[in-house]
Amino acid sequence: MQVPSPSMREVASMYGTAVAVFLVILVAALQGSAPPKSPFPYRIPLDPKKSLELSWNVSYTQETIYFQLLVREFKAGVLFGMSDRGELENADLVVLWTDGVKDYFGDAWSDERGQIHLDPQQDYQLLQARRTPEGLCLLFKRPFGTCDPKDYFIEDGTVHLVYGFLEEPFRSLEAINTSGLQTGLQRVQLLKPDISVPALPLDVRTMEIRAQDALIPDKETTYWCHVTELPAGFSRHHIVMYEPIITKGNEALVHHMEVFQCAPQIESVPPFSGPCDSKMKPDRLKYCRHVLAAWALGAKAFYYPEEVGLAFGGPGSSRFLRLEVHYHNPENIQGRNDSSGIRLYYTATLRRYDAGIMELGLVYTPVMAIPPRETAFVLTGYCTDKCTNLTLPPSGIHIFASQLHTHLTGRKVVTVLARDGREKEIVNRDDHYSPHFQEIRMLKKIVSVQRGDVLITSCTYDTGDKKLATVGGYGINEEMCVNYVHYYPQTQLELCKSTMEPGFLQMYFHTVNRFSGEEVCTCPQVSVPERFASVPWNSFNRDMLKALYGFAPISMHCNKSSAVSFEGEWNWQPLPKIISKLKEPTPRCPASRGQSPANPTVVSIGGSKS
Amino acid sequence: MQVPSPSMREVASMYGTAVAVFLVILVAALQGSAPPKSPFPYRIPLDPKKSLELSWNVSYTQETIYFQLLVREFKAGVLFGMSDRGELENADLVVLWTDGVKDYFGDAWSDERGQIHLDPQQDYQLLQARRTPEGLCLLFKRPFGTCDPKDYFIEDGTVHLVYGFLEEPFRSLEAINTSGLQTGLQRVQLLKPDISVPALPLDVRTMEIRAQDALIPDKETTYWCHVTELPAGFSRHHIVMYEPIITKGNEALVHHMEVFQCAPQIESVPPFSGPCDSKMKPDRLKYCRHVLAAWALGAKAFYYPEEVGLAFGGPGSSRFLRLEVHYHNPENIQGRNDSSGIRLYYTATLRRYDAGIMELGLVYTPVMAIPPRETAFVLTGYCTDKCTNLTLPPSGIHIFASQLHTHLTGRKVVTVLARDGREKEIVNRDDHYSPHFQEIRMLKKIVSVQRGDVLITSCTYDTGDKKLATVGGYGINEEMCVNYVHYYPQTQLELCKSTMEPGFLQMYFHTVNRFSGEEVCTCPQVSVPERFASVPWNSFNRDMLKALYGFAPISMHCNKSSAVSFEGEWNWQPLPKIISKLKEPTPRCPASRGQSPANPTVVSIGGSKS
Repeated sequence: MQVPSPSMREVASMYGTAVAVFLVILVAALQGSAPPKSPFPYRIPLDPKKSLELSWNVSYTQETIYFQLLVREFKAGVLFGMSDRGELENADLVVLWTDGVKDYFGDAWSDERGQIHLDPQQDYQLLQARRTPEGLCLLFKRPFGTCDPKDYFIEDGTVHLVYGFLEEPFRSLEAINTSGLQTGLQRVQLLKPDISVPALPLDVRTMEIRAQDALIPDKETTYWCHVTELPAGFSRHHIVMYEPIITKGNEALVHHMEVFQCAPQIESVPPFSGPCDSKMKPDRLKYCRHVLAAWALGAKAFYYPEEVGLAFGGPGSSRFLRLEVHYHNPENIQGRNDSSGIRLYYTATLRRYDAGIMELGLVYTPVMAIPPRETAFVLTGYCTDKCTNLTLPPSGIHIFASQLHTHLTGRKVVTVLARDGREKEIVNRDDHYSPHFQEIRMLKKIVSVQRGDVLITSCTYDTGDKKLATVGGYGINEEMCVNYVHYYPQTQLELCKSTMEPGFLQMYFHTVNRFSGEEVCTCPQVSVPERFASVPWNSFNRDMLKALYGFAPISMHCNKSSAVSFEGEWNWQPLPKIISKLKEPTPRCPASRGQSPANPTVVSIGGSKS
Repeated sequence: MQVPSPSMREVASMYGTAVAVFLVILVAALQGSAPPKSPFPYRIPLDPKKSLELSWNVSYTQETIYFQLLVREFKAGVLFGMSDRGELENADLVVLWTDGVKDYFGDAWSDERGQIHLDPQQDYQLLQARRTPEGLCLLFKRPFGTCDPKDYFIEDGTVHLVYGFLEEPFRSLEAINTSGLQTGLQRVQLLKPDISVPALPLDVRTMEIRAQDALIPDKETTYWCHVTELPAGFSRHHIVMYEPIITKGNEALVHHMEVFQCAPQIESVPPFSGPCDSKMKPDRLKYCRHVLAAWALGAKAFYYPEEVGLAFGGPGSSRFLRLEVHYHNPENIQGRNDSSGIRLYYTATLRRYDAGIMELGLVYTPVMAIPPRETAFVLTGYCTDKCTNLTLPPSGIHIFASQLHTHLTGRKVVTVLARDGREKEIVNRDDHYSPHFQEIRMLKKIVSVQRGDVLITSCTYDTGDKKLATVGGYGINEEMCVNYVHYYPQTQLELCKSTMEPGFLQMYFHTVNRFSGEEVCTCPQVSVPERFASVPWNSFNRDMLKALYGFAPISMHCNKSSAVSFEGEWNWQPLPKIISKLKEPTPRCPASRGQSPANPTVVSIGGSKS
């Protein structure tokens, strides 16, 4: 390795002004009463060995992200970027590479074969490149949207970051193909909400829920279960904040963690700490599903709004908690011990409002199914005006966080609030949703739901590799469409979901038979999954199923806890009518577009010559 | 009026270089052996009084159109532009206006209420503004596509030009609303094909087919019919070119003209010259439908390819011709006489190939129907591989021109050629098609059709104002989807069209009844239009009809002349499978985008001060 060469210093001087301006902006962007923060408040290791570490910050006024990429072991170059679902083809990339003489930084893209091309419009702008004791540090920025059709549009929700290492010089950018490189992906929410952090109460106390020295198994995926309990006589408290505790060195292995409370009936659970699929796992742990806290890679501390807390402890609640840690160890690293967990911040001074969690979306029923070989099939569940009218308090409820949930074929999830037949607001939307990255997300803006509002949750599925229909249900190979919304004040409504009125599915199967030229089925009743399995999936049967889901009346589940329905008629409800839709989000083109250079930037970081 | 003011001269000097460059380009763009042309070869009056006249030229290398707008009576300003279907709302406009002190030229757009706004990106670029003896002459250019979402993307096919007159100064552009102005629309093909003009044979002769002093009726729409005949003993000739003859002064009234030849069986037709809907019109004229020539507003001369001619005269063809002239007289101008018509250029030295005309698209049958209240419903007709395999010569045929045809609800028409299941080439496409503007268009590039190719013709309809389904058929309130393609060498195949297999429509009606909860119809057979009229048009019935048209087998018409089918089984044919589609056309963003000024150009043309 070399100290920065003279030409590097030139570059630094070139970008001097830019960096100064940038720092002013960063400082200006800091707000709230929290202790002083790094100019890059968000940080995530990209690869399991932590050779690449990304930090970033978001300027909502500039609609720009500032990235700091730390390359711990620099050989001949590195690539970083984003793509639809984490693939290295059709990706939007920045590439730092050397031809053996000079080093270059350029905005690039990869085609469907992984071949890299320079972008005619350079939207990633290098602000600084410098050697640090930790490694090579690149500072660059990019607008959310660039209006370049080859570029990724950075939206709310999950972003699939991709990276790769160049081991040798390349004579040109066009000589690089991602298929020959060591590459990987990392999922993250880049556009963290720009909300101020509420102050913690003076009497706040903390409790660490963590396993002690769990030996991380040397396999790709482990769900680790650890049982713990609240102190005897622990009275009702409010959780007001929680944050991850990650054992140093394991930052790239701990994928997500959740703390569940057992059902009130569970009066004791034997001690356990081991893989969740272990035969030794106490049976009773399956009753421990009430979420108290959830964290996923890239997330920071979770704060409840100032007047809100999540109740735990006291009579009517179980003393037993289950910690679940998802270890992601694709390189089968051995002998690593871990004591990661979650630190709960709680107070005995109960806040004004209890937080509640409500389940929106589809009933778990095979009536809602996805034909095979569909790459973007949409199913929609409703929480109707009739249910919200009956169950919400006169002043409504306020949703402040949301956790989206599907099984393995889910690719997008969105919940929209509609009032008087008009879509008004997005509750939460993730157009790059992954079932492997389900975090509780603070909403950018609290969404107030009034009596009579409708909440519409749509999930988009990819069954491109399936041979049979995927039906709704509890199994991992069945599907769900759920949005757990976190709100206040707590109400009795725990579940507001729908399914198509089942009789229409029978008419559908009848019509399928008629158009297929087969005899009308007179055989004894067979199950819905079996009937779906026998549908010949031609375009007409697909389109007719879609048409029916968009037309048939629904059956509502408007339930209190323990699946008890509110009183009323909930079958044969009309599908809510939407007369005006929200506009699709479109990138705002940056004003300074014409000024971006059409060539890569020459940098000198002494890459392969070290 | 004033002579150009000093500041006008400044402007002229500012744009001097631009204009010089522009003229060089225009001269370079001229090609072929035709006589020298104007730098603006295309010209069209915009309003019926010819106060506004547009000339233009197309640079395909720059992907830019050069416009010259002549304003004969300039008061306080003028607006010109384009919109989806000729409306003055949501239009892409250039506005020349005065605030009483200064005059301005700016790229603007109108919102859905007709309110005008300045475009942040100025893509119409003023090159020159000068007074001429004829009026104020504006020279400006615009790229086909600008990548500004508020801008119209100039494509092949029909463009709806709009215009308006400002009668008084406006303090600002934002103070103008198009609803208060005298405005209008004119349809034209702006992107004329850039093809070289074939030389005419030395023995070429001409024949003028025109009415003599027809008195144009003082009503908006008149179709004028005029019978004429070929000289006795007129032998077989080839038409190699034709051009319009427009009576001077009537340029804005003559909307389109067609010359038809009567069927060979028609041995005499009584003389007639009058409105086509006149009771005096000879009955036999309805057998005069074989197109020899067709012209529409804005079109220039039509040339057959060098080795091709359209046969007329000689044994086996009728001597009688019918000229049809469409007079468009919205201002009810009285006492105007007209002798417009078409001049045929023909030769006795027959060329190598006879031209043929073939009809592609949908069979005229009520089986193909459009539900009411649909704004973009698509119907598709096929010419299958089986038919082209059987009927085309081994070396294929070559399509050089095309005339699209629908009735009143048609909004788009496209014909695509597919080979081995893959879309290969657009034969003709008009995304802004209007049934009021049906011209024969030369193709930019001759399309060769081989045996085994499939030709797919899709029409998009708008039935937004209908209460009942619109069924296929001959009537003006029924619909058609046709592309008349002009090709060589002539074959026996005159008609290659399809319809959905009718049995599937019966199953559709049956299913509609079942899902509507009605009794299955056991009444005596009622007609297809009647059954369509009784469908309750909910989303499911609409979607199911769409799904069926996209799935059910088809019945082919693969016919010689006089509706005689080629031998073979043409019913229950599979719908052609398309495994890869052509990409949608998208605008290329001009490279110099960032340089366009963000403000209107100040010009001085002494507008309202005259």
